[in-house]
Order: sequence, then structure tokens, then C-alpha cells
Amino acid sequence: MPELALLEEVIEKVRPLLGQGKVADYIPALAEINANKLGIAVTTRDGVTIGAGDYLEPFSIQSISKVFSLTLALMHYEEPEIWSRVGKEPSGQSFNSLVQVELEKGLPRNPFINAGALVIADLLQGRLGAPKQRMLEIVRGLSDNQRIGYDKTVARSEYQHSARNAAIAYLMKSFGNFNNDVDTVLKSYFHYCSLRMSCADLSKAMIYLANGGKSLAGKQLITPVQTRQLNALLATSGLYDGAGEFAYRVGMPGKSGVGGGIIAVIPGDMSVCVWSPELDTNGNSLAGTAALETLSQTLGRSIF
Amino acid sequence: MPELALLEEVIEKVRPLLGQGKVADYIPALAEINANKLGIAVTTRDGVTIGAGDYLEPFSIQSISKVFSLTLALMHYEEPEIWSRVGKEPSGQSFNSLVQVELEKGLPRNPFINAGALVIADLLQGRLGAPKQRMLEIVRGLSDNQRIGYDKTVARSEYQHSARNAAIAYLMKSFGNFNNDVDTVLKSYFHYCSLRMSCADLSKAMIYLANGGKSLAGKQLITPVQTRQLNALLATSGLYDGAGEFAYRVGMPGKSGVGGGIIAVIPGDMSVCVWSPELDTNGNSLAGTAALETLSQTLGRSIF
Amino acid sequence: MPELALLEEVIEKVRPLLGQGKVADYIPALAEINANKLGIAVTTRDGVTIGAGDYLEPFSIQSISKVFSLTLALMHYEEPEIWSRVGKEPSGQSFNSLVQVELEKGLPRNPFINAGALVIADLLQGRLGAPKQRMLEIVRGLSDNQRIGYDKTVARSEYQHSARNAAIAYLMKSFGNFNNDVDTVLKSYFHYCSLRMSCADLSKAMIYLANGGKSLAGKQLITPVQTRQLNALLATSGLYDGAGEFAYRVGMPGKSGVGGGIIAVIPGDMSVCVWSPELDTNGNSLAGTAALETLSQTLGRSIF
Amino acid sequence: MPELALLEEVIEKVRPLLGQGKVADYIPALAEINANKLGIAVTTRDGVTIGAGDYLEPFSIQSISKVFSLTLALMHYEEPEIWSRVGKEPSGQSFNSLVQVELEKGLPRNPFINAGALVIADLLQGRLGAPKQRMLEIVRGLSDNQRIGYDKTVARSEYQHSARNAAIAYLMKSFGNFNNDVDTVLKSYFHYCSLRMSCADLSKAMIYLANGGKSLAGKQLITPVQTRQLNALLATSGLYDGAGEFAYRVGMPGKSGVGGGIIAVIPGDMSVCVWSPELDTNGNSLAGTAALETLSQTLGRSIF
Repeated sequence: MPELALLEEVIEKVRPLLGQGKVADYIPALAEINANKLGIAVTTRDGVTIGAGDYLEPFSIQSISKVFSLTLALMHYEEPEIWSRVGKEPSGQSFNSLVQVELEKGLPRNPFINAGALVIADLLQGRLGAPKQRMLEIVRGLSDNQRIGYDKTVARSEYQHSARNAAIAYLMKSFGNFNNDVDTVLKSYFHYCSLRMSCADLSKAMIYLANGGKSLAGKQLITPVQTRQLNALLATSGLYDGAGEFAYRVGMPGKSGVGGGIIAVIPGDMSVCVWSPELDTNGNSLAGTAALETLSQTLGRSIF
Repeated sequence: MPELALLEEVIEKVRPLLGQGKVADYIPALAEINANKLGIAVTTRDGVTIGAGDYLEPFSIQSISKVFSLTLALMHYEEPEIWSRVGKEPSGQSFNSLVQVELEKGLPRNPFINAGALVIADLLQGRLGAPKQRMLEIVRGLSDNQRIGYDKTVARSEYQHSARNAAIAYLMKSFGNFNNDVDTVLKSYFHYCSLRMSCADLSKAMIYLANGGKSLAGKQLITPVQTRQLNALLATSGLYDGAGEFAYRVGMPGKSGVGGGIIAVIPGDMSVCVWSPELDTNGNSLAGTAALETLSQTLGRSIF
Repeated sequence: MPELALLEEVIEKVRPLLGQGKVADYIPALAEINANKLGIAVTTRDGVTIGAGDYLEPFSIQSISKVFSLTLALMHYEEPEIWSRVGKEPSGQSFNSLVQVELEKGLPRNPFINAGALVIADLLQGRLGAPKQRMLEIVRGLSDNQRIGYDKTVARSEYQHSARNAAIAYLMKSFGNFNNDVDTVLKSYFHYCSLRMSCADLSKAMIYLANGGKSLAGKQLITPVQTRQLNALLATSGLYDGAGEFAYRVGMPGKSGVGGGIIAVIPGDMSVCVWSPELDTNGNSLAGTAALETLSQTLGRSIF
Repeated sequence: MPELALLEEVIEKVRPLLGQGKVADYIPALAEINANKLGIAVTTRDGVTIGAGDYLEPFSIQSISKVFSLTLALMHYEEPEIWSRVGKEPSGQSFNSLVQVELEKGLPRNPFINAGALVIADLLQGRLGAPKQRMLEIVRGLSDNQRIGYDKTVARSEYQHSARNAAIAYLMKSFGNFNNDVDTVLKSYFHYCSLRMSCADLSKAMIYLANGGKSLAGKQLITPVQTRQLNALLATSGLYDGAGEFAYRVGMPGKSGVGGGIIAVIPGDMSVCVWSPELDTNGNSLAGTAALETLSQTLGRSIF
């Protein structure tokens, strides 16, 4: 367990980086965020959570929700049902590219690029009765925080700017790899992305990835093997087109969102969440990545 | 340390897979291999090596040599000299594709695809006096085996079928990312690939990856940080376009060669080498991957 | 003016090719066509139309409608309004590829691939009051045939299989190159494609391309310069990814549809329409292309 | 036959465009040219040549030589021997791209992009005794000018910057579509490109394209059908990735070179050559294209 002082040191060490990145501005609701926010939280396997900076302030988790979606899919589907519809390989292309989807006949490369996450959302739509409600319950339970909710303004704003994701979904549909109504699935997908959670909420919620699939409350969400596999996918594909650099610098499985959050995992040990809204050119939190790198070096802990 | 009996079990468990893959046949010298060979060796951090099956029989290490090349480059160049000429990201494309190199203006995605390894070979050519001789010395030292040598027939045969690699090198040259004579570098590169080593040789040689950069003989080749970084690159890019699947199934940083060898690492613990000449559709040893998967499951050890 | 006997000869010469192509089957309504249909009609600049074979039988004109759409757009928009939204170059890719549209940031290569035709349909939607009704009036007027109509079954069937075209439209929308509601434009677009016309209807309707923009009835639809330009675009981009081969063999500007029709033009002289439902691998009528090639050779007439 | 005064008018009309383009500078020998040169020459079917501006000054014909190469290949090979190794379709990509060649397994799209011209040069190397000498004789004969020669400085300079073309040739070799020594063929290829000819030379040499394959001296180089076919290929693929725009504006089959020359043809009538070294963004002479457009409009002559 890192000392609280260590987290505060990490925060102060990376604070000078604020101002060097760029807040996501493709939807107005995200662009309005205070760019100077900076927080970190760590949850250990034994259930203790500590944090520094703005670690209690909720933010838009965006693509970090793709980890919850995949986990939910693993809970409701047999693995072949999932892996026949989405691959496990890094994409080598930007997160919202259609080129790969067309060349590979509608099969997205992995569940963490948009195309793959839309297929997962399509799966959830097909089997869960009320997927948006179910997602909320799961996430609230994992974080032990009943106040977690969707940001309707963000969800609506994303939906109004959803042409690119609609294009991806229709392209997969044209290859037979999308079953439900595109519009309905897009709405669910944007709701998942609009979840507002704090670093503390996220580090708590993600502890199952460091704990063989078992949540804070002791619920076995997925098997230990599935947990290892999910971490493996995060390590190779969790940071868009910056997964290699992230592994090189940070050395933990992780997942980022354009809201500036990044979750990371030291399997068997702890889950971490950092937040800083300004992004680097790959779309990952600039100061957040640096904070994780510093934490990894200071703890001398990495999976490598 | 796994028991010898465990390695023998692993071998017997995967032996039924022989016959399901396809031996590399793009050069005659490789196609002639006995397809039924199967071996495994493990070297622990304290220097003990055990093995089962054909683990003492030398084979053509092919692309596994890319790990040695990058290590040599790290020993002779400052890091920015290397990373300004080759990236750190998974390619998302076949190992010998020119498309990515053209679209990204001559910068190969990582040091383990052919384009990246050719850039590394170009670097070695530029700074080492006699790169082929130097490589041999290094590898012999790491394995503590003076009989390791190049297979001149394989090297010559690869050179005679080198049009694709020549195309890649010239394409990078056209973007200013290749400095030495293409022909000379290709000859060195094919020599590195033609190294003949056994599973025992390779697991011994690779122990520095599990030991903070320190070789069997106690020599610090690269720093502990560089070692973690190299393992990170292997985890995200070491298995061509099958890195995600390999991480998912095996969960260790690794590197494969079309000769049927795969090396893998449990950082801080042990290095492993498996060999079986038949390849899967991604060009990785089919039974070898299964052997590593079994080993990982049985030991309950993975980086994730 | 070719003799009627010549047209009959052409028909008999290519009839043995029936059975060598493949009827379009991506929607049921098209797959049901009698594959043995074969017709040709020629209209000369002085207004005479002759034909042979099934030249009076209406068929689904499909992409031939893209010529009418572009003509209508030229009649209702200033040229820069059109050419700032769609290019004039051959695509070098399949007619419904999204790769080019993504790489070139939402700008389709030309008005005769699907992406370009959808942009044109978006333009028509924006300025014409009732575009489907207007298209019908124009086409009926050009062919002097009030019985020409839409095939509602085909239009509905195409709409039900429209995922690919929806993906293209949404992709362009994501780049700001699509203004109207995607669904509405798709419905118009599929109506245009579903027009049922005979070879006689089409050769009459297209005579303006051979007559400096003037229709059979003497109406100046577009200027002589625009007519030359439209013919130039047809010559370089009118036959999907088979434009080069078509120019090489036939040597006339032309436009094909997956219903098996092809229209072609000898500027200053005559318009031609052939019909045979079986397609070659590029999606162009196999016997139809051969008929035009034979006609071109026999008349000794080509633009080259 | 256009009047001489008309050619002078054309020249004066486009002269104000000088300064708006950019001289090719990828090799020093080309960059040194006087950017203000401007010339035009027309040769009619009956053998008369007139010109204006710098029409008697020799320049580097560069890719215009690809027309001579293909013609020579047609003279020495059966057509299937040629068209099994190079396609007839527009490429939709930049003239020196390797992407298409890799995706289409070593088959270049047409004989006028670099890849295609290298295959043609490989063919010539295989069957002509002394291809460089033979090319010189042909060109001198066609222009009736024994002083035409290679510019050794340009040829050498291009060879020294030949990495990109070497990459293309080796890539095709890796697919089995290149038979001779790459280096030897590159040297021949660069010699062809380095031919120095004037507008007058070129318009005379190209008259066979307007005259059913018959040269000024009355020699039948290729058949009338082959001539029509060659013109068709020029119309669809002769101007790199600007063929559609050129057809739209000029409406003649043509071929450009980075030296600033463009040849164009009105089949059955005349051949034209313009020269102005500054290029547009597609690599075609900016003022030259405008001159051809003006000529086409003034004469009211186009193939469309």
C-alpha cells in the first residue's frame, strides 16, 4: 500500500504539466471542464482506498466505461459468443477508424476501440432487459456509491454528434455484425460513456481486476482466468494508439477516457485511478499518464 | 522453479497438436525441418536450467534475434537515437507490410516487425565495427555456449529471397530513415536471423529479461528500467499480429520466430523457451504457444 | 446512324455470353430477374431511336440514375457548390468503399461512386421541394414516356439493406459533408435507383449528352461545356473500378448499373443503352459491355 | 489546323499563371530549370508542325517517356504478356505509392504510374538487346531529330535518389512480377526519363497517337486498335491523380512529366505538346494544363 504522502508527492510532481495538453472539445459538454483538475486514488486488494488532489470529484468516465461493458458481457455471454464478434488484437489505428473495420469485414480489432465497444453494447442490448439501468446498478454496487449517475447533458450532446459512431455501427451491420437497432444501441452506449464517477469511485470499482475478479463487496464478477485475460487485453489495447508507449512508460494494464481519466491495475495488488482533463496527442490524459509513470517508478512496481 | 516433471507433462499435453500447423516454407532451408520436434527449457533467475523434449537441439531462431539486436542497440546508442527512428506501438498489420511504413512516412511501428528490425540492424551497422562477429560473441556469452553459430545456408537462402525486405529498407531510405548500404545491412540481418540455438541456449540467453538486465554471468547488459521497457514492448508487439491473443492466453512478454521458437519471460523469475516448427496462421509456433499457455496455467503464473 | 440490322447482329454476337456472368443478388427484388434478357437501343442526335432484342422492356436502372442526379444538381446549383463537396477523380476502389472517404476526410472521389451520389442526393434534397417527384418528371420528360415510375418493391428492399450506404452517409456527416437527415436522403436515393426504364427510354433520355446538353424535346438542360465535362467524368469514373478497361475496350463515356444496364455516348452523334442482367466481377453487365465493344468496333466509332 | 496566331494567343493568355506553381525539386538537376519557360507545339496528321513560345527548347521529358516505353512494349510483346503484368485502371493514389502494389499483390494499376512503368521497363530489358540505345533510335526517328539524347546528369541524379523506385521494384519482385536485376532496370528507366526533347520534338513524335498508329515518316508502330486503346489508357490514367480533372477541363488523352511537359492528342486530328516547368499539386504543369484547356475551348475541340 502506498502512503498517502506518496500520492500527494506524485500529484505535485506532475502538476507543472498542466497546460501542456488539450481538453477534448468534440462535444461542448466536455469542453467546459476546468482544465486544472488533477486527482489520484488507489484501492488495495484488502479494500482500503486513499487519494490525493481532486480524487473525490466526479468526472465523465467516457471510454473507461468500456471495461464495465466488457465485464458485463462476460457475465452474460459465453466467451465464444463474444470473441466471434470482436477480436483481441491491438488496432494500430485511431480509435474511431472505419478503415480496419472495412478491410477486416466488419470484425473490430478489440473491445476497447469504438467499433468493438459498439459490438459489446449491441450484445448487452440483446440480452439485458434494461441495459442502462443494469449498468448503473452494477457500477453503483462496485463503487459502493448510490449517487453515481448518468450525465444526461453529456449523453445527449454525444448523441447529437454521433455521426461517426453511427457510421461504424452501420458498417458492421452491413457485414452482419450488428443485430439491434443502431439508434437504440447508440443511446445506451452514450449513456455508459456519460457516467460520472470520481477517482475514488473508479479505483474502488476496478479492484476486481486486481483481485481475481472479486469486487470490494466480495462478489465474484468474472473468473480469475477471465480477469487475467481482461488485464491482458487492457495491456495490449487499452490506450488507443498509445498502448505501447503506456506499457513502456507505466507498465500496468490500463484504460483511458477522453474525459481525462485513466484506470490502471497492478494485478494481485491494487487498482489506481488518475484524472486530469488535458489530453496528449493520442487522446490519453497527459498529466494522468505522467502520474501513473511516477507512481510505477516510485513503487518500483510494474507488471514487467 | 517448475519441476522437471512439469515440463515433461507440458510437452506430452501439447504433443497431440503436432500436425495441425504448417512449417514455414518461404525458403527451402527452413522447409526441410522435421516437423515433429518439440522442446521446452526454463532458466530461473538463480541460473538453473531444466528442459524437456528436444530442448538441446539447435534450431533457426529467426525473429527471436530481434530481441538480441534491440538489446545490442540499447547498449550502443542513447535511447532518443533509437526511438526517433522506430516507434513503440503494435502495428496491427502483418509483420512484413509496407503499407504502414508508407503511411507513417518511413517510421516503423516497433522494433519487432521486419521494418523496425531493419532500422535496428542499420543502427548496429553504423556503430559496431564488425556487427556479425559482435552479435555472435554476445549470444555465445549469454548462453555460455561457444558452439553457437550462423547457419550460412539459411542466411544465403534468405538473402536470395530478400526482395520484400529490400523493398522495406529502400522505402525507409526514401524517407531518410536508413543510412547504410541496403545490401550490406540485409546480409547482417539475415545472419542474425540464421543463428542456430537450442531451447536451453535461448532460455539461458534471455534470463537478463527476467533479471533486471543482468546476464547469467552477472553482466549488466541494460538497466533495470530498460529491461522493464523491453519486456513491455515484447508484451505489446512481440508476436506479430497475434500479440493480443498471446497476452490473453499466455500472459507473458514473448518473442516468436518462424523457425518455431518462442521465448517468454516471467519478470523477476524465469525465462522460458519452447520450440515446435509448425506455425499457426499468425506465424507463431502452434504447439509452442499451447505449451506456454499450459505452463502459465499450471504454474498459476502470468504477469496479469 | 447504325442500321437496325447491325443492332440485331450485335445482339446475336454477344448472346452466347449469357450464362457467364452473375445477376446481382444483394437484394431479393433484383435477384429475381430473368437472366437471359438482352437488349440494345440507339438514339441519334436527330431524334430517331432504333432497338433490338428486349429493348422495350423496363428494368431497374440502379446507378445509371446517378447521371440524372448529377444533371439535376447541375441545373439547380452553381458548380462550386457541387465540386466543393465531391471530387472528379477515379476512386481506384470498389464502388461502396469507406476507406477512401475516411482517408480523404469525407470528400468522395466522384459523383458516380455511392458516396458521391449520396452527396448529390443530399444536395437535391436541400434545394428541390419534392425531389422524388421532380426526378420522375424530369426522367419522364427526357424519355417522352409518362409511364416511367419507381419500383416501390425494389426501393423498399434496398432501404432494408441500406446499412452500407447509411454508414457512408454518416461518415460524411461526421466530416460535415452531409446536411440533411440521413434516412430521408437514403429513401430518395433508393427511389432514384429503383426507376424502371427500358433501353429505348434510356437512350432517348441520354441524348442530351450527345447533343450539347439539349434534350429530345429541344430543352437545354445543361450547357455544352457542362455536357463535355459530364462526359469526361463518365469516361474516367462511370464504370466503378472498371473504367479503364471499359475505355480500353469500348472507348465511350458510359455509366453502368447493377440492374445490368449500361448507357454510353458518342458525343455529337448518338446515345446507346444496352441491357443484360448478368454482371462481370467489376459489377458491370458482361454481355452489355461486349455489345458496346462490338458496336464500337463495327461502327469504327470511339472517342479515341 | 490551328493558326499560329492562336497558339501565340494561348501562350499570352496563360503566361500570367507563371509563378503560381512549383518546380519539381526532388533532384537538383531538375530544380535548376528556368521557371519562366513556356512553349506549345502542334503537329497535324498531315505532318505540319507549328509552335509558339519556347517550343524549340529541349527539356527533360520525364514521365512522358512512359508513353514511348509502352509503345515499344506493344511492338515487342503480345498483349497478354503485357496485361498479365500491369492493369488498365486508374490508381486513385499518388504516382509513387506502394500501398496499392502491396494490397493488389504486386500488380500495378496501370503503365503510367511508376510501378507500372517499371514493369514495362523490366519487359523491355528482357527482350530488347540494348534497350537504352533502342529507345533513343525510336525517339529520334519519331521526331526526325538525330540530336535528341539522354541527359546523363539527370539520369545519374535520379539514380542517386532512386530509393523509392527501388522499393517499388523490389516489392513487385517479392510478388514474382519483376524478372531482371532491379539496379539494371532502374538505370534504363532513369535514362528514358532523362530524354531531352522540345515541344516540337514531342508533338511530332506523338502524332502516331492521332494517326491510327502511323508515325510522321509513315511507319505503322502499333495497330489502329492499339492506338485507340493507348489513347483510352492515357485518358483514364495519364495524369497521375489528376486524370479526372484533366479530362474535365481539357478533354484530351494526355501524359504529363514532372519536367513540366504535357503531351495531348485529338485522335484523328493532331498531337499537342506544352511545356512550363511549374507544377500544380498533382504534379502536372500548371500553366501547361491551362494552355491545353484554352486551346481546347478555343478550337471547340475535345473528345467529349
